[in-house]
Amino acid sequence: MLNPYRFFDPEPDVRKIAFELYTSVKDLPIVCPHGHVDPKLLAENRPFPDPAELIIIPDHYIFRMLYSQGISMESLGVPTRDGTAVATDHRQIWRLFAEHFYLFAGTPTGIWLAHELAEVFGITEKPGADNADKLYDQLQEKLASPAFLPRALFERFNIEVLTTTDGAADSLEYHHKIRQSGWRGKVLPCFRPDAAIDLLRPDWKQEIAALGKASGVDIHDFNSFIEAIEVRRTFFKKMGATSTDQGIVSPYTHQLSRAKADALFQRGLKGQATADDAALFTANMLMEMARMSVEDGLVMQVHPGSFRNHNRIVFERFGLDKGADIPLQTEYTKNLHELLNKFGNDPRLTLIVFTLDESTYSRELAPLAGHYPALRLGPPWWFHDSIEGMTRFRERVTETAGIYNTVGFNDDTRAFPSIPARHDLSRRIDANYLARLVARHIIDEADARRMIRALAYDLVRGAYKLS
Amino acid sequence: MLNPYRFFDPEPDVRKIAFELYTSVKDLPIVCPHGHVDPKLLAENRPFPDPAELIIIPDHYIFRMLYSQGISMESLGVPTRDGTAVATDHRQIWRLFAEHFYLFAGTPTGIWLAHELAEVFGITEKPGADNADKLYDQLQEKLASPAFLPRALFERFNIEVLTTTDGAADSLEYHHKIRQSGWRGKVLPCFRPDAAIDLLRPDWKQEIAALGKASGVDIHDFNSFIEAIEVRRTFFKKMGATSTDQGIVSPYTHQLSRAKADALFQRGLKGQATADDAALFTANMLMEMARMSVEDGLVMQVHPGSFRNHNRIVFERFGLDKGADIPLQTEYTKNLHELLNKFGNDPRLTLIVFTLDESTYSRELAPLAGHYPALRLGPPWWFHDSIEGMTRFRERVTETAGIYNTVGFNDDTRAFPSIPARHDLSRRIDANYLARLVARHIIDEADARRMIRALAYDLVRGAYKLS
Amino acid sequence: MLNPYRFFDPEPDVRKIAFELYTSVKDLPIVCPHGHVDPKLLAENRPFPDPAELIIIPDHYIFRMLYSQGISMESLGVPTRDGTAVATDHRQIWRLFAEHFYLFAGTPTGIWLAHELAEVFGITEKPGADNADKLYDQLQEKLASPAFLPRALFERFNIEVLTTTDGAADSLEYHHKIRQSGWRGKVLPCFRPDAAIDLLRPDWKQEIAALGKASGVDIHDFNSFIEAIEVRRTFFKKMGATSTDQGIVSPYTHQLSRAKADALFQRGLKGQATADDAALFTANMLMEMARMSVEDGLVMQVHPGSFRNHNRIVFERFGLDKGADIPLQTEYTKNLHELLNKFGNDPRLTLIVFTLDESTYSRELAPLAGHYPALRLGPPWWFHDSIEGMTRFRERVTETAGIYNTVGFNDDTRAFPSIPARHDLSRRIDANYLARLVARHIIDEADARRMIRALAYDLVRGAYKLS
Repeated sequence: MLNPYRFFDPEPDVRKIAFELYTSVKDLPIVCPHGHVDPKLLAENRPFPDPAELIIIPDHYIFRMLYSQGISMESLGVPTRDGTAVATDHRQIWRLFAEHFYLFAGTPTGIWLAHELAEVFGITEKPGADNADKLYDQLQEKLASPAFLPRALFERFNIEVLTTTDGAADSLEYHHKIRQSGWRGKVLPCFRPDAAIDLLRPDWKQEIAALGKASGVDIHDFNSFIEAIEVRRTFFKKMGATSTDQGIVSPYTHQLSRAKADALFQRGLKGQATADDAALFTANMLMEMARMSVEDGLVMQVHPGSFRNHNRIVFERFGLDKGADIPLQTEYTKNLHELLNKFGNDPRLTLIVFTLDESTYSRELAPLAGHYPALRLGPPWWFHDSIEGMTRFRERVTETAGIYNTVGFNDDTRAFPSIPARHDLSRRIDANYLARLVARHIIDEADARRMIRALAYDLVRGAYKLS
Repeated sequence: MLNPYRFFDPEPDVRKIAFELYTSVKDLPIVCPHGHVDPKLLAENRPFPDPAELIIIPDHYIFRMLYSQGISMESLGVPTRDGTAVATDHRQIWRLFAEHFYLFAGTPTGIWLAHELAEVFGITEKPGADNADKLYDQLQEKLASPAFLPRALFERFNIEVLTTTDGAADSLEYHHKIRQSGWRGKVLPCFRPDAAIDLLRPDWKQEIAALGKASGVDIHDFNSFIEAIEVRRTFFKKMGATSTDQGIVSPYTHQLSRAKADALFQRGLKGQATADDAALFTANMLMEMARMSVEDGLVMQVHPGSFRNHNRIVFERFGLDKGADIPLQTEYTKNLHELLNKFGNDPRLTLIVFTLDESTYSRELAPLAGHYPALRLGPPWWFHDSIEGMTRFRERVTETAGIYNTVGFNDDTRAFPSIPARHDLSRRIDANYLARLVARHIIDEADARRMIRALAYDLVRGAYKLS
Repeated sequence: MLNPYRFFDPEPDVRKIAFELYTSVKDLPIVCPHGHVDPKLLAENRPFPDPAELIIIPDHYIFRMLYSQGISMESLGVPTRDGTAVATDHRQIWRLFAEHFYLFAGTPTGIWLAHELAEVFGITEKPGADNADKLYDQLQEKLASPAFLPRALFERFNIEVLTTTDGAADSLEYHHKIRQSGWRGKVLPCFRPDAAIDLLRPDWKQEIAALGKASGVDIHDFNSFIEAIEVRRTFFKKMGATSTDQGIVSPYTHQLSRAKADALFQRGLKGQATADDAALFTANMLMEMARMSVEDGLVMQVHPGSFRNHNRIVFERFGLDKGADIPLQTEYTKNLHELLNKFGNDPRLTLIVFTLDESTYSRELAPLAGHYPALRLGPPWWFHDSIEGMTRFRERVTETAGIYNTVGFNDDTRAFPSIPARHDLSRRIDANYLARLVARHIIDEADARRMIRALAYDLVRGAYKLS
């Protein structure tokens, strides 16, 4: 059973206030402005196949921990791209997971799973070797029923809007299908052109070709590349998008002349771009994307500081997003200087910055966000989307930037059924943070009530233009 | 009303002990060894003009937050240097502030303001749209009375000594006036030669000329420059100064030969100094200033790690100190190596180092201060002068350096009427920190009583030679 | 008297749970997989000479704090290598320490000393000027009795195994003596070849000569150097070693060809190695040591990020390990990339990484350890082996890496009688950390019981192959 006071401080005053604050927002609709749910799921609305396929195989949060403790990804059924055979007995995969569920004690993954099992599936036992089969059967049975179809869950989860993440050349076919289906769930795309911007990607030229095709622009130089990006942004916007996203190594920003940018682009086309070329090209594209956002009003998101695919063996066998993206130290004060000087005072821009480097919260990001009108801070990201991580974020950011320069919560998930668990955790932790302020007479209860609503609902709708 | 237990942990044991510790020091005199109050205020002792002029217009802590939320600085009456018109209706400025007071919930600015309004002005209502005019009138009435003149407040605040910050060429005219006035308030200058040291400042040559004039030294080379600095230090010391201060980007220290230093100086005079020249000149001047401190006994303060005037648009219109100075990652172990090797074992030197980079507290600064006899750690600075910031400082520094290698509190403020609020907050947070140690049996109550007095009063007087 | 609930949170629920968890492990044997106790102590089993020799003179944790407050190391009897006379009246040294014991309030050193005095020597008074002589006499009397001989203490402390740290050329003479003595205490060596790896050490060539002699290998090039290292590892393993250790400035790893490595080695032999040569040589030796660990199964430890002997004056007079080693910012994601790519997926390797840079806990180390099967995180090291330091470690690491990618506790001490104090503190802090999780319903009590046993006993035995 999930304890109703879970995650709140045990001190009775804090717990009582936190519970009241949480209660005031727990039934507000869920707003998901950034995530990785596949729109196909909601377009086709087919049943989830089985517990392993639902919970284990697609979720790198889960299999990276098991892998770190010596359990092979093949034995967990994670699909390979080099043809290596993997386990296909999904019940056996579930057993392996259940036997090692104790590894997740104290982690957000453990918390999300407990919530998902209990609240979505009515299972309140902790998975283990002894009950693995029973739980598998219970889950299997639920998944086969209409109440557990994706759209039914979307409605039951009370999701007001769900934003996906889509490549620049994406046809948005499944978004079309959802719109045409007559179903009223609001699912929006987000424009993420990373594959077209990173000159070093092995598939960059294919992506440019795809982008040309999708946009109807003959891309042969930087100007036509920019035109194609603009065409696609317009299309995404027409399809309901309110935001863009970019994942980059460094948030370095620097405006190049069109001629210099084109020289880099041409080297990319010839396969001659160096690492420096690619970094400079990205720095300039951040400037271009900010300019476009000023013009078309799409909210700009930037996610820097991840060393992608750190483990080559895992990457070569299993591909992207396998739990081997590792954070890097990141610098914002100097790197964002040029972009913020050019666009940071412009009321037409909303720039939402994320980080994997918590040392920048109080040192760089809160001071920047507490000054520049265009800048807002994204919620704690990835490894930091956790009880301690979210608490550290509020404690280090609020005193300098307040809460109104932050943008509420992002679940950032590809695990659709974990969405309520993630938002519930966030609402509880923000409530607990505010309760600690009330109990210490830093804010009063009226402040706290306004603030918990802002953190749970108002800020995200405002910042992402979703209201 | 201000709750008497505010800012203490809600846990009853901690709260009780914290309250007792705080009570034991709350009425001790206030020692202000570092700040930015204009000595003219106390020399002339004129009434503060109105609430907006007192609280909003000069305080970048306040208008940067409002600016970050889209309120223009012009509408807040912040004076421009480019002739742009700004709001002049101070009642209207006050209203704008009061309507947005909720933005400061959870920030130290909000806490200081609440304390200042209540304790200095007897106003216990939270500012808002509905009571803005009433509060304006109440404040205006108080400001007109003799009890609210600067010197009356200085005495009511129980300030034992107030140190200002003054340029190397400053005549200290207002310090003279205060001394000659017969008033017994102790106001001391602090020697801050930044404008004469930074070769890249646009006004550096004027500053050198002013320094030459003030010192009576014909400054034509590095030796005469150093002589002028020494003359001025002697003058400041005669005027009561016990300390110097330097604001620098990096704490890099490196001794140059006089010939090499002179080559840099000459390039500066010709307007040919590069960024590297300026950095090296500063590195050498830190060595020279340490040498002079060994000789004349002035306590040396160093404040590194701020990217000044990050927002050029704001800088060009409004000038310095407008809330757009943003911290930078800072390195101390290597950068201070040369200075500490030359002077760090010398009992004649007190070097007080500050930081805006909290990641250095436990990694670099506490280990250095827990070893070198000359080194002391300044209190948490600027963005970190807050409940969580001060708590993090103690938690990360004390276990390695103890409390006796720290120097009590600096209010660092230009907002004179906020001084009691800032010291009260600091005393409460230190009391709460110590109470947590007592409640966990890490220290006993006798330790705690000695330590709270040290933190509130004894350490600052000792470190800054103010006793 | 030591309070039985010391170091636990005062909140009653947390305190109660923490006490129960701690009670369940407090009598488990002590496992010391990494430390600096001199094996001679246990080989010869002679009485400790006197309180100053036992507690003050050899312990840089103690005299660095006294030195930072202006007490000379000569007056504390710290032996010099330049012939400078030092205090020899050990009773007087003890008095000086006792008078300044208040400096350690709130530090782990103060906590360890209180525990050591009370639990090992039955002294429950806080040292001070007034009782210094009495305590000296009491300690002196105890030290003279057989119950306080090193082996008697080893047994009383319930030490299951104690690992020392030994140079690559060490004869392990005292380990031989312990084995031959018939005493059943388990004391193991650890292979630490730093002196042979750092090309810049003034005594590097002597170390190579000693290594050649110890190994019986004629070391004239890189291949024979590696052979000698391998011979010595085999010898250490035969003598019971289960682990190696390396102290390095940066954890940069990079494989060189044997020819390139030999070129660096030859430059070292000619005294021509540059700083870059030395760094590259070390980077390659980390790869070689990992390869050897894969082959011989010795657990590999890496301790990066200390600027050794920062204070030249202290180093020249007093030598190594005098409290003047200062941490440096450290990078792991890029630096360990090559090693982890080559060996990080190999189940035969256990790589235990430590840090002095807490900003890497959540940013780099936990994400790496939560993915790579070979990687485990060492406990908080040196300055961070403290109440707040250990708490920060768990709070920043567990949510991403769990507890099972960490390795329990290292006391890392050369102060033999402080061993129980250090392990007791660690067990208490881990119990308190887990109790906070239980009280917030993040884990349940069954989880917590398994986890506290893992943290206190099971993980260290497993990770270091000591079971």
